[in-house]
Parts: sequence; C-alpha cells; structure tokens
Amino acid sequence: MIVAHTFLAARRALAGTVGMVPTMGYLHEGHLACATAVRATSDCVVMSIFVNPLQFNDPSDLARYPRSWDRDLALAERTGVDVVFAPSVEEMYPEPPLTRVTVSGVTEGMEGARRPGHFDGVATIVAKLFAGIRPDSAAFGRKDAQQLAVVKRLVHDLNFPVAIVEVSTVREADGLALSSRNVFIANRKAALGLSRGLFLAADSAGAGERSGRTLEEIAGRTASRAGAVVEYAELADARTARRIPTLDRVAFLAIAARAGEVRLIDNVVLEPDGTADRGTRLDGPSILGGS
Amino acid sequence: MIVAHTFLAARRALAGTVGMVPTMGYLHEGHLACATAVRATSDCVVMSIFVNPLQFNDPSDLARYPRSWDRDLALAERTGVDVVFAPSVEEMYPEPPLTRVTVSGVTEGMEGARRPGHFDGVATIVAKLFAGIRPDSAAFGRKDAQQLAVVKRLVHDLNFPVAIVEVSTVREADGLALSSRNVFIANRKAALGLSRGLFLAADSAGAGERSGRTLEEIAGRTASRAGAVVEYAELADARTARRIPTLDRVAFLAIAARAGEVRLIDNVVLEPDGTADRGTRLDGPSILGGS
Repeated sequence: MIVAHTFLAARRALAGTVGMVPTMGYLHEGHLACATAVRATSDCVVMSIFVNPLQFNDPSDLARYPRSWDRDLALAERTGVDVVFAPSVEEMYPEPPLTRVTVSGVTEGMEGARRPGHFDGVATIVAKLFAGIRPDSAAFGRKDAQQLAVVKRLVHDLNFPVAIVEVSTVREADGLALSSRNVFIANRKAALGLSRGLFLAADSAGAGERSGRTLEEIAGRTASRAGAVVEYAELADARTARRIPTLDRVAFLAIAARAGEVRLIDNVVLEPDGTADRGTRLDGPSILGGS
Repeated sequence: MIVAHTFLAARRALAGTVGMVPTMGYLHEGHLACATAVRATSDCVVMSIFVNPLQFNDPSDLARYPRSWDRDLALAERTGVDVVFAPSVEEMYPEPPLTRVTVSGVTEGMEGARRPGHFDGVATIVAKLFAGIRPDSAAFGRKDAQQLAVVKRLVHDLNFPVAIVEVSTVREADGLALSSRNVFIANRKAALGLSRGLFLAADSAGAGERSGRTLEEIAGRTASRAGAVVEYAELADARTARRIPTLDRVAFLAIAARAGEVRLIDNVVLEPDGTADRGTRLDGPSILGGS
C-alpha cells in the first residue's frame, strides 16, 4: 500500500481502472464496506483520508472530530486499499479557495437547511477529489442519504465520468448505524431510538403504509420515547432529497436527533412497494469499540 | 477527424495525452492558434464547439451569436484537430443544471461587474468540459484576459491536472483583435480605437510610465476620440484580475467599449519592466472576412 500526500503523488501511484473511497478517516466497517464494494470492479482502490474544514459549519465539531491515523492505515491495508491519499490542509487549500461548487435543490431540506454551508463544502471537496484523482468509480454510504443525492447530482451536472456505488448502511449488532461520531455517545438508549424508529416505520411500509406523515410519525415518536431529541423525521425522494407526502417512488426515511450531546442521523431506503434497505448488521462489536 | 456529439463518444475517440481547445465556434485564426499551441505537446487535439447559453447574460446576444458549422469543421480539420466535440444543448444540459461553479474575487471587476452571471456560466462549462473530457492541457486566448484568470484560478482551486496554455491575441493587419462578434462591426474606425489606445499605452509603458491611471487614460481617451463609447479601461493584476494603481507585476491593460452596436473588449499584457504582449498580427485578411 502506498501513502500519497499530494494529488500528483496519488495520481502517479494509480494505474488501470480506479475505484475511490472518500473518507474523513477514523475508519469503521462502513468505510471498509465501501472499499470492498469498489474493489471488485477496479484495478486500483484509492482511499482519501481528509477531515475537510470546509464542510464543518460548527468549528467545535471540527475541533473534536476523532482522528486515528495509524489505526486507519492498518485497516485500509487489511481491506485491500492500494493507495491512501492523505493530503495536508496546505495541499488541499494552499490559499483560501475562491472557487465553490454549489448544488441547489437537493441541498435545500434536512441537513442542508440545518447545517449552512455544509453541502457546499461537500460538493467542493468531492469535485476536487474527482477532478484531481480522476477515479472511474467512487463509493459512498447510504447512511448519508442526502449527501449521496448531492454527489450523484454533482456528477450528473458536471459530467464526471465516475460511477457512484451506493453502499448499504453498516450497523452494530443492536442496530446503531456506524458513524465516527458514535465514540461520543453517552446515552446509547437514546441513540438506538433512531434506528428502532426507522425499522418500525419500515415494518409499517412493508405492511402497506404509504403515507409519508404516518411513517415520519412512527420514526420520530419512537426516537423521542427512547430519549432522543428529534430535529426532523422526513420521507424524501431519493433522487431529489425533497420531502414527499406519499411513498410512491424510491425514497428514504431520514431522521436527525440529538442523543445527549451527540447529533446523529440515520435513514432507511424505501422502495415504492414498501421493501426497505435497512442496512447490514455486524455480528460482533464494531472496530470502533463501544458496543 | 472524428466528430463526437456526446461526452462518452468524445472520450472514446481520445488516446494518449489530450490537448483541448474550448470554443463557441465561428472559428477564426485565434482559435486555430490555440489548436496549434496544444498540438505540439499532445497526442490528440480535441476542440469543443458549443455556444453555451449559461454564459450569455443578454438573450439577444445569444440569439444573434454567429454560427458556421461546415466552415468550422473544415477549418478544424485543416488545423490538425483530431476530435471535434460538438454536444447538443440536450447533451450538455439534459435538465436544468442544479450545480454551479463560482469563482469569487477574480470575477468581481471589469466583465464580471458588467455581465452578471457570465463568469459563473464560464466556470461551470469549463469545469464540465475538464471533468467530462479529462484533457492534459487546454489553450485559451489572452484576448479574454479576465476569463483566463478565472480559468486558471478554477483549475488551481479544483485541482484539475490540466496545464493552461496562454495564447497571444491574434489581430487583423490593422490591429483589430479577432472576435467572432467582429462580423457585426459597422464602425470599424471606432472599433480600431481600442487596439490603438492599448498600443499607445503600451508604448508609454515601454518608455517608463508605471501609473495605472495614466495608462488607462491613454487607452480610454484614444478609443473615445476614435468614436468608441468606453465602458472601462483598467490596469489589472494578471493573476487576480483586480485593478492595480501601479504597473509593478504582470498585468493587463483591458478596455471595453461599444463601437456602434457592438460591444468589444481588448487588452495588452504588460510586464513590470514595461514590455508588452500586444498579440500577433495577420499579414492578410482574416478568415472571418471584413478587413
């Protein structure tokens, strides 16, 4: 495995078809599933590790974002990553960037409405990675459903010849969706309310429920009862990330809530026939620990 | 020579190192000089021909923008272009684009201030072409000096591995800078005022003048006396496109004026030692005709 700290060194280390996994490090099984997903169709897998200041609307969230360089390298190597691209902030932003990539529409609701500037930062860094590394495919987790819609729209609109591979959310054995921020969870009961609510709503969709409001209420009420402070529970078109009143297309039911100090998001992808992608569950504890 | 109408077909037609020349068609010797400039360092030269609605702030300007498809193809072939990429509006914008690329700072003055949205359109289409075609180099004319600064900043900020080749302005024998819009010139005396003013200012810089205001006054006054209605004459930092009071770095002296109905821009690039790139002159009439 090669570790590259500049775009030039990363490009030079690549050969054949390139599959990319953009990450902010502090790897867990969700990231590793992304690497595995692109490995099958790529001669070369490149994983970027960069905590992107541009996408943090909250400076304290950036300051305390967890980092674990040596552990990340060992995990990437073990998962068959060929190149780790780990640029410094100076390599990524040698001067304050004047160029911004913005995606409208898809970014208006949910996370976009609550984290001003977040998706501009995401769109800009993804454009930089795709422009500078030139991958053939890139994997993103369904856990960040709105981000996935933003990236797909960006790729479509800017004609990047990058196939976006969607990877199901990876969950702990008890249902908690993996996230690097999980290390900060103190009230696990509340945190588990998010996935429990989503699963109950998915059960209801499977039994025939199509009302967005009803599905949202099931998810939100369950999370609240577990002690989470719900910011939103929304059924959204998977492509446009806009709220829809009825489950009549591919959609995701998303929830955002605080469990104690930690803000968490989660979702299930729902088909119009009521079937759901609830993600995959680990058998034992996550490599993040804590379960 | 291959003519491709989709990004996919264009990419498939390319091999080896790729040099690109983005154009809006109605080719003249300035475009051909760009193709020649990248040919030396490229296995394959691709010229795009697309009148980009996104960069026209004035709908009537878009409606009357000249087009000459058969002539363009013959000229491209004669100049050694390997692939003409001529997408339809539907290929370029299959749905109204939600993704915008904006460059701040560099776009604030001169053309950016007077043509709202113009440089957003330029930055977005250039990002699409570079993302979708993946050239190794791309040539742009110095005639559009601020556009060149925008493109260079875009490439820098988004990490496109594209070498930007700057091509000196090509002029008619009488000094008029080539532009597809020249076909609309009725008052040639006024139109010639722009280049005449710039050359007089360049003479003055060569003789030691370093005051931005003085150089601007020479250019503006000369154009006005020839009958042009001057919008601005500005000495600007070549990299930031910001107005500077003194010629103490690489700069361009730019002028924008109306000659009758036609809005024209022109510039000379000035070095801090007072030497100038005034462009190159054709011996005989341009292939645009009219001289």
